[in-house]
Amino acid sequence: MTENLAAATHRADTAPGLFVCFEGGDGAGKTTQVRLLTEVLQQQGREVVVTRQPGGTPLGEQIRELVLHGDHVSPRAEALLFAADKAHHVDQLIKPALAEGKVVITDRYVDSSVTYQGAGRALGRDEIMALQHWAVGGLLPDLTIVLDVLPELGRERRGHAPDRLESEADAFHGAVRRGYLELAATDPERYLVLDASQPVERVHAAVLDGVDRVVTARR
Amino acid sequence: MTENLAAATHRADTAPGLFVCFEGGDGAGKTTQVRLLTEVLQQQGREVVVTRQPGGTPLGEQIRELVLHGDHVSPRAEALLFAADKAHHVDQLIKPALAEGKVVITDRYVDSSVTYQGAGRALGRDEIMALQHWAVGGLLPDLTIVLDVLPELGRERRGHAPDRLESEADAFHGAVRRGYLELAATDPERYLVLDASQPVERVHAAVLDGVDRVVTARR
Repeated sequence: MTENLAAATHRADTAPGLFVCFEGGDGAGKTTQVRLLTEVLQQQGREVVVTRQPGGTPLGEQIRELVLHGDHVSPRAEALLFAADKAHHVDQLIKPALAEGKVVITDRYVDSSVTYQGAGRALGRDEIMALQHWAVGGLLPDLTIVLDVLPELGRERRGHAPDRLESEADAFHGAVRRGYLELAATDPERYLVLDASQPVERVHAAVLDGVDRVVTARR
Repeated sequence: MTENLAAATHRADTAPGLFVCFEGGDGAGKTTQVRLLTEVLQQQGREVVVTRQPGGTPLGEQIRELVLHGDHVSPRAEALLFAADKAHHVDQLIKPALAEGKVVITDRYVDSSVTYQGAGRALGRDEIMALQHWAVGGLLPDLTIVLDVLPELGRERRGHAPDRLESEADAFHGAVRRGYLELAATDPERYLVLDASQPVERVHAAVLDGVDRVVTARR
């Protein structure tokens, strides 16, 4: 299955829209950077759909609730629930928006599952990747921006009460961080890794540069 | 992934308990046969755990609600939700019960997903099977009893209001039926196909024969 799916993945650039993903550990500043990028793109006259994973659809929000705030969920069940959310999300929201030429910005996508489930836990990364790619029908972002942050800094930045995943130890978040960096290294053109300990405006400027580069390359 | 998983599947007979599954189209009489078998085994002094899929755990019941009675769910999301239910169910309920020497009787298991999702719909049967086998960590029943019924008879028998899956056309149920028979043909020792149009007591007697055969073979 892994091999079949690897062949089937494709960049979103076959659709008229633009698909941008923010990834990174908790407290990396994804929410802020999604908002700042959205404002700029809207000022440029683009229609922007902002979403997040897990969640983003009514079914996805219910799944999010089950996974993040419910009782113990076995590791494989958790991986499959995240994949189900992704499958529905792509089918109902992301693909239709891209087909209409909109910009889709997502807070987390397949790489979150691969790193959180695959790198940080007992499940194999390749299996999780195959599962995730199957779930999204091979649709990958035009650009994935990894906001790289040391676990200690991420923990300091989180202002709200931690959910179950956020409560895991820093060692887990360290493994997640390494997972992101390993994924980014496999495809430097599709990934932009930014040092998220920099001031917000500086990270934002680098985000805009990265998005401009992708938009220009597609013209 | 398919190949890795095929090698990893194993019969439940490595555990001290006994794992029996009832499969078949809607209206085949699974509920009745599960009850009758349970009564006999309990009279024999066995501890019996009866469950169903999807469902059987609090998380599973929530997933069941999402899939069967919620709004439109995309085909891949549906397949992944059924798999998530299965993963959790095996981890939380089936494996512990078998380890304690109990009999587990389940109303539907992996074959339902393979036939309903794989045979009846657009998704590939091999992909669904790989997904399901991965979800259950390769744990298969000692005996799977297929209650075989023509779609027209199954429809007549259903006394309650049909849910979303039950509302699908008879053509769909015909494909499901063929899916079960094809699966059963691949492993005649692990499957028992019974003509469910026979009187209840006759089907029950055949069920008991089949279970006795498996229990005897394991002594």
